[in-house]
Amino acid sequence: MITVNDIFKFLSDKYPLDTACDFDNVGILVGNGDTIVTKIMVCLDCDKFALQTASEMGCELIVTHHPVIFDGLKSVTHGDIVYELIKSDISVISMHTNLDIAKGGVTDSLCEILEFKNVKPYTAHDGFLIRSAKTDIKNPDELALHIKEKLGYSVRYVGENQVENVLVCSGAGADFFEDAVTDNFDALITADVKHHVFIEAINKGISLFDCGHYASEAVIIEPLKKLLSEHFDETEILSYYSDKIKSV
Amino acid sequence: MITVNDIFKFLSDKYPLDTACDFDNVGILVGNGDTIVTKIMVCLDCDKFALQTASEMGCELIVTHHPVIFDGLKSVTHGDIVYELIKSDISVISMHTNLDIAKGGVTDSLCEILEFKNVKPYTAHDGFLIRSAKTDIKNPDELALHIKEKLGYSVRYVGENQVENVLVCSGAGADFFEDAVTDNFDALITADVKHHVFIEAINKGISLFDCGHYASEAVIIEPLKKLLSEHFDETEILSYYSDKIKSV
Amino acid sequence: MITVNDIFKFLSDKYPLDTACDFDNVGILVGNGDTIVTKIMVCLDCDKFALQTASEMGCELIVTHHPVIFDGLKSVTHGDIVYELIKSDISVISMHTNLDIAKGGVTDSLCEILEFKNVKPYTAHDGFLIRSAKTDIKNPDELALHIKEKLGYSVRYVGENQVENVLVCSGAGADFFEDAVTDNFDALITADVKHHVFIEAINKGISLFDCGHYASEAVIIEPLKKLLSEHFDETEILSYYSDKIKSV
Amino acid sequence: MITVNDIFKFLSDKYPLDTACDFDNVGILVGNGDTIVTKIMVCLDCDKFALQTASEMGCELIVTHHPVIFDGLKSVTHGDIVYELIKSDISVISMHTNLDIAKGGVTDSLCEILEFKNVKPYTAHDGFLIRSAKTDIKNPDELALHIKEKLGYSVRYVGENQVENVLVCSGAGADFFEDAVTDNFDALITADVKHHVFIEAINKGISLFDCGHYASEAVIIEPLKKLLSEHFDETEILSYYSDKIKSV
Amino acid sequence: MITVNDIFKFLSDKYPLDTACDFDNVGILVGNGDTIVTKIMVCLDCDKFALQTASEMGCELIVTHHPVIFDGLKSVTHGDIVYELIKSDISVISMHTNLDIAKGGVTDSLCEILEFKNVKPYTAHDGFLIRSAKTDIKNPDELALHIKEKLGYSVRYVGENQVENVLVCSGAGADFFEDAVTDNFDALITADVKHHVFIEAINKGISLFDCGHYASEAVIIEPLKKLLSEHFDETEILSYYSDKIKSV
Amino acid sequence: MITVNDIFKFLSDKYPLDTACDFDNVGILVGNGDTIVTKIMVCLDCDKFALQTASEMGCELIVTHHPVIFDGLKSVTHGDIVYELIKSDISVISMHTNLDIAKGGVTDSLCEILEFKNVKPYTAHDGFLIRSAKTDIKNPDELALHIKEKLGYSVRYVGENQVENVLVCSGAGADFFEDAVTDNFDALITADVKHHVFIEAINKGISLFDCGHYASEAVIIEPLKKLLSEHFDETEILSYYSDKIKSV
Repeated sequence: MITVNDIFKFLSDKYPLDTACDFDNVGILVGNGDTIVTKIMVCLDCDKFALQTASEMGCELIVTHHPVIFDGLKSVTHGDIVYELIKSDISVISMHTNLDIAKGGVTDSLCEILEFKNVKPYTAHDGFLIRSAKTDIKNPDELALHIKEKLGYSVRYVGENQVENVLVCSGAGADFFEDAVTDNFDALITADVKHHVFIEAINKGISLFDCGHYASEAVIIEPLKKLLSEHFDETEILSYYSDKIKSV
Repeated sequence: MITVNDIFKFLSDKYPLDTACDFDNVGILVGNGDTIVTKIMVCLDCDKFALQTASEMGCELIVTHHPVIFDGLKSVTHGDIVYELIKSDISVISMHTNLDIAKGGVTDSLCEILEFKNVKPYTAHDGFLIRSAKTDIKNPDELALHIKEKLGYSVRYVGENQVENVLVCSGAGADFFEDAVTDNFDALITADVKHHVFIEAINKGISLFDCGHYASEAVIIEPLKKLLSEHFDETEILSYYSDKIKSV
Repeated sequence: MITVNDIFKFLSDKYPLDTACDFDNVGILVGNGDTIVTKIMVCLDCDKFALQTASEMGCELIVTHHPVIFDGLKSVTHGDIVYELIKSDISVISMHTNLDIAKGGVTDSLCEILEFKNVKPYTAHDGFLIRSAKTDIKNPDELALHIKEKLGYSVRYVGENQVENVLVCSGAGADFFEDAVTDNFDALITADVKHHVFIEAINKGISLFDCGHYASEAVIIEPLKKLLSEHFDETEILSYYSDKIKSV
Repeated sequence: MITVNDIFKFLSDKYPLDTACDFDNVGILVGNGDTIVTKIMVCLDCDKFALQTASEMGCELIVTHHPVIFDGLKSVTHGDIVYELIKSDISVISMHTNLDIAKGGVTDSLCEILEFKNVKPYTAHDGFLIRSAKTDIKNPDELALHIKEKLGYSVRYVGENQVENVLVCSGAGADFFEDAVTDNFDALITADVKHHVFIEAINKGISLFDCGHYASEAVIIEPLKKLLSEHFDETEILSYYSDKIKSV
Repeated sequence: MITVNDIFKFLSDKYPLDTACDFDNVGILVGNGDTIVTKIMVCLDCDKFALQTASEMGCELIVTHHPVIFDGLKSVTHGDIVYELIKSDISVISMHTNLDIAKGGVTDSLCEILEFKNVKPYTAHDGFLIRSAKTDIKNPDELALHIKEKLGYSVRYVGENQVENVLVCSGAGADFFEDAVTDNFDALITADVKHHVFIEAINKGISLFDCGHYASEAVIIEPLKKLLSEHFDETEILSYYSDKIKSV
Repeated sequence: MITVNDIFKFLSDKYPLDTACDFDNVGILVGNGDTIVTKIMVCLDCDKFALQTASEMGCELIVTHHPVIFDGLKSVTHGDIVYELIKSDISVISMHTNLDIAKGGVTDSLCEILEFKNVKPYTAHDGFLIRSAKTDIKNPDELALHIKEKLGYSVRYVGENQVENVLVCSGAGADFFEDAVTDNFDALITADVKHHVFIEAINKGISLFDCGHYASEAVIIEPLKKLLSEHFDETEILSYYSDKIKSV
């Protein structure tokens, strides 16, 4: 019989907790390690719709990418996600920056779905591991359309020149723009990009793509589901994709 | 039918939350405001024995002086007080520094039980409200024995000279020693006193009494129980005194 | 003959510099106050394409919303915008947060173009002035399409419930989400929204629209052009809209 | 002829100053290194009664554990300990955290007087050296009585379970409670324990003893007196125990 | 009979302590308020030569401008000024920034000795009180020579243009250069000026004079001596001028 | 044909930028690296008179010791040195702390001109490289006159005892006074010395010389001119000495 602790041990062996950033919060964040698990739901965020789905489907465990608790909680009351999780006997394991940087982690999955070549680890100036890669689609407007098609979400971008060597970071990676400049990349592909970084990119002649935070990370759900399925073959693994994060 | 919200409204009218210190954490910290309350347990700290007692007695609400959550929680899992409270359908309301300073609050109750006279609000240099008072027992050694007898806990103290005008602060109030010096009090009566403050007191010739933090504040349990009983006459109010905090 | 100083005096009378945020940098940031101005270009950002256009069109002055210098410059060399501006004898006046909050400023212009009703100043918890308003388009998906049509840029959003009372802040206003919650608004309409705020919005049942920073602020260009044209009738006023900030 | 400098050299060879904590203040803190010493008084704190005794007994040097100056002095006037020391031609050497951690230092002396076994250095998470040990008295209530008897001072404590492996730190060592939890000790024996740490101990099922700061450290006076007597056989070494720090 | 406390009361009535800067340290910094005073020495700094002179002349009190203790003392041992003062039964009263700003204080005395006209209080942007004045000597090179002659110390300066309206601050007042620029003064006259402020002065066309910190403040010694002599006519007042601070 | 970049490469090979202090700002700070250089002006500070001279002499490049930009610029307008440099097509390379510490750098040049012997690198407690040396002129008053004669500027100093072993730091080096005390130097020779350090020097019996910041560093102009002349023999190298920094 598989418990929450078993799943946690497996995931933390594969994505060691001490590779997470200092500010991060990862591990079994809510619930009971001894709970027997027959169904797991894999998703990006444990929002109230994800919780409702897990509850309806009879999952005892939700595995998320984003920590279900980030800022420390000063109260836990009715209506709060954490309160409802406990009431529903659902545990949550969160694997965040330790999963972003791992081989086969979020950024690798993004590179794969975007069909990039020569994907290699790249250590940014702040020590965080992202990826460098090559793209066959060299026109920035065509590349934007390609990303939109693959991820199913609007792409916001600047780009006038041909691109080949790209720096890639799933989620909020605009801080790596400086790395892209220093190391002569043609483009940075990430999300949560603020306006002034777009202006810097225009001035430097580097392409910059904001793929949507959710869209750039939801690519990890399927690989994570597959990984757990292969290892825990008697446990049912479900995936949950949010349809609440929309764009037109 | 009385709910947690009703009790909270009554208490926060009497002890307004905005009179609490900035660092404090007060209010409904765990549970469900809509829960119907038939039994309330009043205590100082919601530790695991308090929780067990409340659960056995069928209380839906615990009213504590010390916040059941103080530092923000980064996880809530099996064995944690907050987790077990939610599982047991017990809510917690904490009234802390807003209760310390209130008329009829913790320090006033301490003064009363110690039979001090002329008890008056005193605004310390940091703006916190404590009390000045007069004692009839003027010998510091006799006063220590008197406090021990009234509070039922060891008293640690320094004191060589006669005392009459005393400054009083239930709980950890050693920071007010400077006020006692500046305003020529004969003694400071409080708890959680560190060694170097005792040495300062010896050098200044001022008496300083550490009554035990728990002992100096448990005096509020009975008045709080009485207050709630009078106002919510169909609700059963229990009090819980810890026997785990011992001295020899 | 009109000089850069004359334009600056007019703009700073209308949008007083001391109403800008403390962190901001506004005024004549580059150039020569005594330069005679025959042509002005109004735009959002003085990027290299804006500069090139101004130069080709013979403008002696660029009026921008975003400060052309924000972080202090540690060097000014060939290829830097500031260097090229000086070489081209073009001055820059930037009016930023003092223009955001003004009556008829950026957020007011956004409300007008989105055809909102009952537009009123709203003072946020941090003291910044934004706007409250009412929308006739109550379905969040239809509202998103409406915004996209009016601003000509992709809209990213969450929203499940009907909306009527909205909080509006052009540019990066996600920090006002807490105000929207506290004051029971149905939606916040702004830009530069990070992922975790979208998740909070899902959990709170509040709609949240990210209209694109540039798109939400380019609405000020025309009113600013009109204002300057009316006052300086012998000076030619051009507007520059960037086509480099794209979305698919 | 022995001077203050000779005593200092001997003590700092045995308890090197650079093993003291960064925040500490150790060495010859008051007086004259060249003064010839015929009588030394060893005590914990140089308070006004200790100074008076040293003066009456004709001591030229006081060796203390607690620094006679801790916060930097902004004035030195009549009535201040430092002023009176200088007027009385008495020097003070203070050996503080360098003495706490040393082999045969304060915590070792505390372990010895409490008849603990298997006393070993233990490096806390903050790098400070304390001690691990075993106790034959396994009932926490009996252990509290044993400590009270040996140290002659009230003991405040929590403890429900049998104890064997204990962590020991003379003086204010409540910060090491986390170490006790992490490394599965049954008890922490120290002083200056604040209320909330007692509550944590109750919840964790770990025993926690507050022996009194003075009582837990006065145990070093005799060993220090002995050490100095053996080495400086022509100098008279007195010990001073404070009777001003009382408990009932 | 006059005591140190009497002198202190007189001086602190005239130069109230609460007008000193927050960082400052003023009052009776060393000694005994009850000491009877027959001879007082007035000087700028209580260095070892000043102390030796006071001791030889039989002074019981030194009144200084610069605080004899500034950074808090972590030890007081043989050879330290404070130690030797106590051994010599000499008290020290220091009147620093409260004396700088007072009517008839240090900056006023400097203005008088330099024969400036229209001397008026000027409140700097940081709230400190300095002086504005007019000089009849308008050529900066001649003014430098005039200052050198009056103060007997080298003057370091920059100045190309005629000066009339001057800002004056005895001691280290280079921080007021910005005030001089803002309010269109022709010159700032002060001391302890760092190189980069001289360069700013060259670029702004403002004259800047560094008169030497000691020289610019020793002007207070005589007025202070006179003041004390008039008020305490049975006490002998001596002045001490340092010949150790030299220039060629 | 020699460009600004060629000069920069040569200087940064000789005085590597990464040996500059963290707070420093060195390199090509203003201008255009591709500009062809026929005339270079070497000086300490690019003030407005230096700029005017460079412009009149037809220099395309100024090499300075002090950074022409230090605090980041929030605006660049008419009248600012940086604005005027760009208008005049003059580039600036600044070599600051990397030049101070280099072999043959500013402090070495100061030692040479003062005819000191046994000049050796000395690593100060903050890691900065200064110099230790020996002087044949042992009387402090004679040494002051010697320095004044060699540097042509007033010298301010304290010194009562014979000196031989001296610590030397061109520019503002008063922070190294502590090193001079610790390592038993007889004197510290530097500039920008504040009054309280002179008083410390008097009390410690160490000589302390303030040679004037400009005077102590202008000694590098000639060596720098020579170095550039030898390497770039077809480029004319001029030196500029400021006559605006005066003393009487």
